[in-house]
Amino acid sequence: MGEKLEALKSHLERFYDLQQAAAVLAWDQEVNMPDKGVGPRSNQLATLSAMAHELFTSEETAQALEAAEAEVADLDYDSDAASQARVTRRRFDKQTKIPTELVMRESKATSAAFVAWRKARETDDFSLFEPHLQEIVEIQIEKADHLGYTDHPYDALLDQFEPDMTTAKVKALFDDLKAGLVPLVQEILTKPEIDDCFLTEQSYDLQRQWDFTMLLLRDLGYDFSRGRQDKAPHPFTIEFGNADVRVTTRLHEKHPQSAIFGSVHEGGHALYELGSPDRYERTSLAGGATLGLHESQSRLWENQVARSLPFWRYYYPILRAFFPEQLDGVNLPTFYRAINKVEPTLIRVEADEVTYNLHIFVRFELEQALITGDLKVADTPDAWNAKYEAYLGVTPPNDALGCLQDIHWSHGTIGYFPTYTLGNLMSAQIYYQAQQELPDLEQQLSQAEFGPLLDWLRKRIHGYGRKFTAPELMAREFGEPVTAQPLLTYLREKYTALYEL
Amino acid sequence: MGEKLEALKSHLERFYDLQQAAAVLAWDQEVNMPDKGVGPRSNQLATLSAMAHELFTSEETAQALEAAEAEVADLDYDSDAASQARVTRRRFDKQTKIPTELVMRESKATSAAFVAWRKARETDDFSLFEPHLQEIVEIQIEKADHLGYTDHPYDALLDQFEPDMTTAKVKALFDDLKAGLVPLVQEILTKPEIDDCFLTEQSYDLQRQWDFTMLLLRDLGYDFSRGRQDKAPHPFTIEFGNADVRVTTRLHEKHPQSAIFGSVHEGGHALYELGSPDRYERTSLAGGATLGLHESQSRLWENQVARSLPFWRYYYPILRAFFPEQLDGVNLPTFYRAINKVEPTLIRVEADEVTYNLHIFVRFELEQALITGDLKVADTPDAWNAKYEAYLGVTPPNDALGCLQDIHWSHGTIGYFPTYTLGNLMSAQIYYQAQQELPDLEQQLSQAEFGPLLDWLRKRIHGYGRKFTAPELMAREFGEPVTAQPLLTYLREKYTALYEL
Repeated sequence: MGEKLEALKSHLERFYDLQQAAAVLAWDQEVNMPDKGVGPRSNQLATLSAMAHELFTSEETAQALEAAEAEVADLDYDSDAASQARVTRRRFDKQTKIPTELVMRESKATSAAFVAWRKARETDDFSLFEPHLQEIVEIQIEKADHLGYTDHPYDALLDQFEPDMTTAKVKALFDDLKAGLVPLVQEILTKPEIDDCFLTEQSYDLQRQWDFTMLLLRDLGYDFSRGRQDKAPHPFTIEFGNADVRVTTRLHEKHPQSAIFGSVHEGGHALYELGSPDRYERTSLAGGATLGLHESQSRLWENQVARSLPFWRYYYPILRAFFPEQLDGVNLPTFYRAINKVEPTLIRVEADEVTYNLHIFVRFELEQALITGDLKVADTPDAWNAKYEAYLGVTPPNDALGCLQDIHWSHGTIGYFPTYTLGNLMSAQIYYQAQQELPDLEQQLSQAEFGPLLDWLRKRIHGYGRKFTAPELMAREFGEPVTAQPLLTYLREKYTALYEL
Repeated sequence: MGEKLEALKSHLERFYDLQQAAAVLAWDQEVNMPDKGVGPRSNQLATLSAMAHELFTSEETAQALEAAEAEVADLDYDSDAASQARVTRRRFDKQTKIPTELVMRESKATSAAFVAWRKARETDDFSLFEPHLQEIVEIQIEKADHLGYTDHPYDALLDQFEPDMTTAKVKALFDDLKAGLVPLVQEILTKPEIDDCFLTEQSYDLQRQWDFTMLLLRDLGYDFSRGRQDKAPHPFTIEFGNADVRVTTRLHEKHPQSAIFGSVHEGGHALYELGSPDRYERTSLAGGATLGLHESQSRLWENQVARSLPFWRYYYPILRAFFPEQLDGVNLPTFYRAINKVEPTLIRVEADEVTYNLHIFVRFELEQALITGDLKVADTPDAWNAKYEAYLGVTPPNDALGCLQDIHWSHGTIGYFPTYTLGNLMSAQIYYQAQQELPDLEQQLSQAEFGPLLDWLRKRIHGYGRKFTAPELMAREFGEPVTAQPLLTYLREKYTALYEL
């Protein structure tokens, strides 16, 4: 590393430390913090955000960055050095547009909003969350104005999570997907309903569910000396450097899939972060590249791996040993069908693979309307319910099962949801390629040998850290941009077999 | 509050936020962090310490402080405004003497030392901790040099935890105490040994122990909406503002006293922090005044309250309901004697009230020798064992039960241990006064009515936050400086009855 780049790196180390410290505080807030701790916590987080922002957008950063850019100007685009300067520049140009005052305001608003959201969801009372959501939407509109955009204010927000993507590009992809998904769902719904009552109408001991998820995480390659699993109302993954990457899950007595697939999903996110190279620590290249790519990893492990028949050839006997009474008389094909039952329902995180993206379409459209002002915050519950009726044919009986189900808005993240579907699209593209290059993959999954797939993902994706945007990485490693076709092909094949379409 | 003081307060809010954020990271490190997380954690903590230190010792602070001092010059010494300026000044004058580089070095050294200490204690291998202790001692010697002292380098370290105290003053107090304690212990040891085998030779279910400690904390007035209890290898209390004050405890199957008195002890610390007035938050006056005063609170609840007969009149029937088999046939007087058994043993935190201070004398003397260089770090285990033999007549069979038992040195805190005995001395003085002023106190304890005592402590101690040093507060509220006599009187009375001396 050249002297100027080294100077930039050394100057920004504190910035990354402050960000990681804030992440520890955020994790604690969701996993441990007593209710009234929110007052001081909100001050602490606002201070950390503000100091990080000031440091990152300082004149000193500007100068160090310019000097480093000059130094790396002749290096390859793909080199660590050039990439470190380039990725820092992208972030710098964005962050300098946002005033510190807004950063602090957002931090305080979201600390309070999280608590209000939790209470609102618990008591099914949208009015508790409404003023907070109002404030968050206003802050996001301001932020979009500061960041700037050509077409749509939503572009500015989306770009924070998924660089090189725009509202229009996402819409085009979603339209392609919709065109294939809607008839697939219709076809499936003409078929006899899959019976999964042995899952949904029996009690599964929570401790045993927990133990099973811990076993799965260990087997997948999640390193417990560099992470831990906890319970949280809304599962998430968070990292404080690549040596401390934590996951959370939630347990439902009558819905063991929630913990099983939730843990594998978060485990997929965690494996991505754990695979970020040590040499990138405390630089702009550390971690997962974009939210879409992140989701491609969590969904690949959750769906292509853990909802597959080979996977359960190995694990179903173990699961039966954990729950001998509940699974008495249930054979593997029956279990496999049950965990892949397609059914339009209310809750995104528990949706099957086919209808999942319909949940995202709802949010993508509502968020755009909130940001343009076409939808008033107060009207969100009604608009939410109407979209659920239109896309999924179901109407939430209350807001807890409706527009209060997700944590995201309480975190101030608007523009984030579309990355879930982008991740689904990429997961299918990536997994298709893995199948081509790892001919024994299916056999390996059926023996819980996840090493070859994980190594392959590390080589093709994780090892690059944040070096490339999603479109760059997909083109470079998988030879094509993000498209809807691979996911549609995967779903049609899998569900044709399952439902005898 | 005047304009200048307001400006000082507002300037320093970020400093207090950074300190609290660092405390959250420290709590997480001890309660949750996976092993390998120590690398990034050590960077995060070093950055937070350094940025806090830079902010606090900045020219801007100097100017704001001077302006505030001029503004409050005519106000009463006791007023909030004058006290805020005075306490800030005391800290500022100390902190500005310590270079940021040393602060960062200390922070990194202690992060690594904590992990090494834990491992060393687990595996009973002092050599794992030795190089870390060496580094910590060197850093403390440097720090003492920076802080400056007249008599003894240890004065400078002690003064960080207990302002207005010196090594010589502490030594004089300890000599007085020793003169009364040693014959008391000798007398007790001539009496028949108390039988506590029903405590030490039976298994007590850990979950029930936990539940009992949670009940105690709740009853004492610990507010779980502003705190939580967790398990940790070395119990401690930590606060992130007065709305989030957390305690930890440890459970031993064959030693239920450890959790019971440990939880009450930490609960006592927590009640002090929870009693710090809201108006002091994010100022120099927030929290507990000194470590000695802090310990006076934890020990008062642990010993004067929770090791008393009235207390167990109420709680013993409940404890028996939790452990009916183990306590079958054990009556209240037998139980009361067992939990007050005097026996020179190896572990400080599990020592009885009488021999406890002998453990402190050992550490007080060894620390001075480490700081002057009279004792080499490598010779610590032998020196430790020799002092235990001399003061307590017992020799640790290994270092895990010897010089590795305490967490403090791994935290870089040298000069801290004497505050435990200072706290014991003050607890007796304070409790004596409480008995005079609350004539129904004994009756109240026997009905688990802790409100009157807690209110009295809030009024006489907690409500002042950090306004006064320990000598100031003791003189002001209790009419005399810290002396050894009240503790000796309390111990002699209690143990004369218990052992029929």
